[in-house]
Amino acid sequence: MADKPTKGLADVVAASTALSDIDGKAGRLFYRGYDIHDLAGHATFEETAHLLQRGTLPNREQLQAYSAELVRGRELGALVAANIAEIAEKQKPMEALRSLVSLSGADDPDKSSIEPEANLRKAARLTAQQPLLVARYHAARTGAPLPDADPSLSIAGNFLLQITGRRPSERAAELFDTCLVLHADHTMNASTFAARVCAATLSDMHSAIVAAIGTLKGPLHGGANEQVMKTLESLDPSQVAQSVRDKLAAGEKIMGFGHRVYKTEDPRATHLRRMSEELSAEEPKFYQMSKEMEEIVFETKGLYPNVDFYAASVYHYLGIPTDLFTPVFSISRMSGWTAHVIEQHADNRLIRPDSEYIGERDQKWKPIDER
Amino acid sequence: MADKPTKGLADVVAASTALSDIDGKAGRLFYRGYDIHDLAGHATFEETAHLLQRGTLPNREQLQAYSAELVRGRELGALVAANIAEIAEKQKPMEALRSLVSLSGADDPDKSSIEPEANLRKAARLTAQQPLLVARYHAARTGAPLPDADPSLSIAGNFLLQITGRRPSERAAELFDTCLVLHADHTMNASTFAARVCAATLSDMHSAIVAAIGTLKGPLHGGANEQVMKTLESLDPSQVAQSVRDKLAAGEKIMGFGHRVYKTEDPRATHLRRMSEELSAEEPKFYQMSKEMEEIVFETKGLYPNVDFYAASVYHYLGIPTDLFTPVFSISRMSGWTAHVIEQHADNRLIRPDSEYIGERDQKWKPIDER
Repeated sequence: MADKPTKGLADVVAASTALSDIDGKAGRLFYRGYDIHDLAGHATFEETAHLLQRGTLPNREQLQAYSAELVRGRELGALVAANIAEIAEKQKPMEALRSLVSLSGADDPDKSSIEPEANLRKAARLTAQQPLLVARYHAARTGAPLPDADPSLSIAGNFLLQITGRRPSERAAELFDTCLVLHADHTMNASTFAARVCAATLSDMHSAIVAAIGTLKGPLHGGANEQVMKTLESLDPSQVAQSVRDKLAAGEKIMGFGHRVYKTEDPRATHLRRMSEELSAEEPKFYQMSKEMEEIVFETKGLYPNVDFYAASVYHYLGIPTDLFTPVFSISRMSGWTAHVIEQHADNRLIRPDSEYIGERDQKWKPIDER
Repeated sequence: MADKPTKGLADVVAASTALSDIDGKAGRLFYRGYDIHDLAGHATFEETAHLLQRGTLPNREQLQAYSAELVRGRELGALVAANIAEIAEKQKPMEALRSLVSLSGADDPDKSSIEPEANLRKAARLTAQQPLLVARYHAARTGAPLPDADPSLSIAGNFLLQITGRRPSERAAELFDTCLVLHADHTMNASTFAARVCAATLSDMHSAIVAAIGTLKGPLHGGANEQVMKTLESLDPSQVAQSVRDKLAAGEKIMGFGHRVYKTEDPRATHLRRMSEELSAEEPKFYQMSKEMEEIVFETKGLYPNVDFYAASVYHYLGIPTDLFTPVFSISRMSGWTAHVIEQHADNRLIRPDSEYIGERDQKWKPIDER
C-alpha cells in the first residue's frame, strides 16, 4: 500500500510551513520571506521572534508590547525555581533543560491549553525564560552569583551578562544577538519536526518543546557545535591539516560540516565565519584552526561548513562555556519551535507515517518449555 | 526538488522495523511475526517486552534473568524519589510522567550512554519503573499508602495492587496483563515516531521516551481512552443512540473510532470488547452503552472501534481512575518505545524531512519606523 521507504525521510515533504524556506542549491535561507542576509545585523532577536511567532516584523508599538510581554514572562515559576539547584547538580545542561521546561508547564498561567491566544502567550514566555533557565542553571552549578537582568539590555546582552558576570561590550551583545537571529528557525530540522509530531496529537506546547529539546541534544543535531569546540581544543594547532586528513582517512566524521539540505555554503556559516574572525583578535588560534580545517575538509570531501562550525569559536570568544553551546542553540530555536507548534495547531492533522516491515514472518506460538 | 506533501505523512514509509507489522485490510497485527491473537491470553507482558526488546519469546532461563532485571530495575532513583510528591501535587498525570522520566535520566546507572548494552539495560529499567511511577504518583496525590509490590505478582498484578490497594483476583490480573500485551507496540504511531525522530539525532533513550510521553498525551493519540470514558460517563444510558446521532450530525468527533491504518476491525478491539463484557457482570451499564455506541457509529459513519474504545470500560471495571488511562497506555507502550530506540540506534540515519513553503515571498527589509 505504501512505497519503499526513504530512509530518514530525506527529500520527503512532511509538512507545509509559512515560517522558513531554504533554497539549498543557491544557499539561501528565508524567514517568512525575508532573506537571512537582510535580517542578520539588521533585525534583533526580539524582532525575529515576533516575525516568526506573530507573523510580521513589529512596528514600534508592537515591539514595545512584545518586549514588555517578554520581560513579564521571564519570571520563573515556583516548581522550576524550587528544583533548579538540585537539577543543576545532577543533570547535564540539555538534560536539565528538558526537565526544567517539563516542570515549567505546571507554572505556566495558561497550563496545557492549546487555544491560539494561549499558544501566543506561551511562546513568548518560553522564549523569555529559556536564556534565564540556562543562566540560572549555570549559576547554580558554579555557585557564582547571578547578576540581575539589566532592562536596558536585549535578551542577547542579558544572557552574556548573566553567564559571564560582566556587562558585555555593545559589539559583543550585537554579535551574539545576530547569532540568535541566525539560529531561530530552519524548516523541518529534526527538533522542529519532533515538536510538530508531538503537537499534531493535539498535545500541548510544553510537551512539544520538551520533545524538541531532547532531540536537539543529539550530536547529529544541536550537539554538533559542542563537538566542534572539543575537536578544536583537541588538535595541535601546528598539526591541524595532518590531523584532519588522518581523521578523514580513518573514516571519522568531522562535526560541523555538510548539511542534508544545502548543496553549497550554508548562508548562516558566512556570517558566523566573519564574526569569528572579528572576535579572534586577542586569541586568533581557534579562528585560524577553523579556517584551516574548513580548507582541508573542502579539498578532501567537498563539504562546506554548516551553522555549527563557526558558531563554536564565536561562542568561545564570547565567553560561553563549551557545554552551554547547545543550550544557546535552544535559546534561539525556541522562537522557531514555538512558532511551528502554533502553526501545527492552527491547521492540524495527526502525523502518523507507515513503516516497512523487515522482520521475521509467520512465527508460531510455542509454550515456554518448548522454546 | 521534493514532491507535494502528504499531509500527516499518511501512507508514507518513514522507517523500516522488525518489531511490528499491521495488515490494515485484513485487520491483523504482528509483533516480530507473532499474530497478536496468538500472544493475547498466552504470552505475559514480561514475555512480550522481552520479545520486543531482545528479539525472542524467552525460554525459562531467559525469562528468569529478564524478570530479575525488571525487579532490580524497579527501584526509583534519588532525584525522582525526592521530587515525586511535589510533582504529583502540581502536574497532571502525563505531564508528571514527562517530568519524572526526564529526571530519571540522571538516576540511571548508564546515564546518557547509547551503547547497545546500555540501551538494553535502560529499556528494562524504564519498563520496570513506569508502573511504579504511576502508582507512586497516584499514592502521593491521594495520600493513600502504597502497598509493597508482591514478588509473586506480575507487573500487571502489582500495578492493580498498588493502584487499588487490594490484591487483584487472578483473573483481573490476567486480563490486565493482556491489556498490556495488546498496547505494547504498533508500528509508526505518533509517539513511537517522535521517539525515533529524537533518537535519530543520536540523542539518548530518556530524551526519546520523554518525547514519546509528551506525544502520547495528545487526545488524538493516547489521550483518546480517557476521552472515551468521559463520553460514556456524560451520556444518559437511556439516550445513547440519540445522543451519538446528534453528536455525529453536529460534526463532533466521537473518540475511540477509526484508525488511519486499519480498514476493518482493529484486532485489539476484538479482545478488549470481550474483556469488557466479561468484567461487566456487576456494572453492565458501560459495556452495554459501549456496544450501543459501536453500532450507531458503524451504521452512521462506517467506523470501527479502535484500541481505545473498549479499553476505557475495561480499565474502569478494573478499578483504574479515568485520568490514569493514558498513563496505563504508557506503561505498556514503554516496551515498544524502548525497542524502537534500540532499533533506531542500531542502524541510524538522521530523520530530517523537507517542507513545502506556503508563506510570503520576496519580503523587503524595512527599518522599524517605516513598518
